[in-house]
Amino acid sequence: MPRLKLTLEYEGTRYVGWQVQPNGPSIQAALEDGLARLLGERVSVASAGRTDAGVHATGQVACFDTSRVLPMKAYLMGLNGMLPEDLAVVDAVEVAAEFDPRRWSMGKRYRYRLSNRRTRSPLRRTTHWEVFAPLDVDAMRRAAAHLLGRHDFSAFRASDCQAKHAVREVRRLAVEGAAGDAVSFVVEGTAFLKHMVRNLVGTLVEVGKGRRPEAWVAEVLASRDRKRAGPTAPPQGLVLEEVFYGDGPPARTAGGAPDAEEDES
Amino acid sequence: MPRLKLTLEYEGTRYVGWQVQPNGPSIQAALEDGLARLLGERVSVASAGRTDAGVHATGQVACFDTSRVLPMKAYLMGLNGMLPEDLAVVDAVEVAAEFDPRRWSMGKRYRYRLSNRRTRSPLRRTTHWEVFAPLDVDAMRRAAAHLLGRHDFSAFRASDCQAKHAVREVRRLAVEGAAGDAVSFVVEGTAFLKHMVRNLVGTLVEVGKGRRPEAWVAEVLASRDRKRAGPTAPPQGLVLEEVFYGDGPPARTAGGAPDAEEDES
Repeated sequence: MPRLKLTLEYEGTRYVGWQVQPNGPSIQAALEDGLARLLGERVSVASAGRTDAGVHATGQVACFDTSRVLPMKAYLMGLNGMLPEDLAVVDAVEVAAEFDPRRWSMGKRYRYRLSNRRTRSPLRRTTHWEVFAPLDVDAMRRAAAHLLGRHDFSAFRASDCQAKHAVREVRRLAVEGAAGDAVSFVVEGTAFLKHMVRNLVGTLVEVGKGRRPEAWVAEVLASRDRKRAGPTAPPQGLVLEEVFYGDGPPARTAGGAPDAEEDES
Repeated sequence: MPRLKLTLEYEGTRYVGWQVQPNGPSIQAALEDGLARLLGERVSVASAGRTDAGVHATGQVACFDTSRVLPMKAYLMGLNGMLPEDLAVVDAVEVAAEFDPRRWSMGKRYRYRLSNRRTRSPLRRTTHWEVFAPLDVDAMRRAAAHLLGRHDFSAFRASDCQAKHAVREVRRLAVEGAAGDAVSFVVEGTAFLKHMVRNLVGTLVEVGKGRRPEAWVAEVLASRDRKRAGPTAPPQGLVLEEVFYGDGPPARTAGGAPDAEEDES
């Protein structure tokens, strides 16, 4: 039975998040409904990770098995005509029967956008966190360097995070843009804890506002104490841009499979 | 009686356009309603030009007279709390009693965005024209050079355009971005005819698709015949970014006031 891998773009504004929930529309349910119409059968889709309510994606990955054999363009053209306008398939390929979008992931790249003007921005309101106080972008950039590498990120996980442990590797944390306009945080890592990117950003913004010195970020990280970090940045600034894959599941480091745990953004 | 100049940002998606109309909400009415709440009196606002249904702005200029004297921050903070979330004041200054946002305008800059991917893009759907066929961006850039300067732009005006004549000056027409992703047209000029930017873009896209040679754009311009140009690009890609002002009304060229006419985008 063929296994299909879909790359998805969505605007998360009106969804309760990726995962099916009783209290509102989910990306997963919208995709499964569209696939049922296209295929004439119900399928279950698995994703590279859950995204939270209001979080967007340009490169979420979802996968499912189907007995129907359709040309790939049926997924790009036909399926897109059956999905809501805030959800689309941007790529579709057949993959190995063993492919697992979560376990085979070698890493992910997120982007977090904020608008740093003194007034609110109608055109950015669903895609940016609006921070009105002027930010010191260079200070945030220097502070971000403290977070690179393999660390226990317990200080930056949500209180209800289900991961077995909090060791993660941040390979890249770039701060782009300019104060007074739009600022982007580009965060790439092996895997992420629940709310980790939003907690990293919320902490760096404390430094950008001048409320905390740059070295405070290193202290927060070392403390492993969630109560020490800055507030969680709101969901609308976050985009899951890309999930990286190799030809098979990545080799796991000793002591379990730290990077195979599901994250929730 | 003080005259106030407001700079406005709005997402035009749900509006019938700038101007008050019986068939739906307008930017002008939303702004006048907000000002009535702030000031406790009804005022009439005049703008630098009308924008069409679905067209956005980051730098629309509006102006009104009021007997109420409020600190400028009342317009940036208080008024923004009374306006809908898709409309905001980004700057407010007191201006000379003779200031006229349309007649004093020395020029405007628009940006037109399109998404050039093979599939639709949920995150760009209200801000970009989605062109699925691959575009030759370099060909569009070379063709755009034919449109620079002072010309009779009759071929690019809407059939119901009310302007007395069609001579306008395009100072800049830059094509930014890359095929397969997002492409922006930055258009700066003294003034514009109704649908002029959208007709210029629709015509350049014909060249980008390879349906017409680059020199065809010069032929269309010289023909002064609207039926020769490409289709009008849809409104959601257009943003009025900036209106330029000097210290008074600009000197007009002989033969009337060609640049003082109201445009509609």
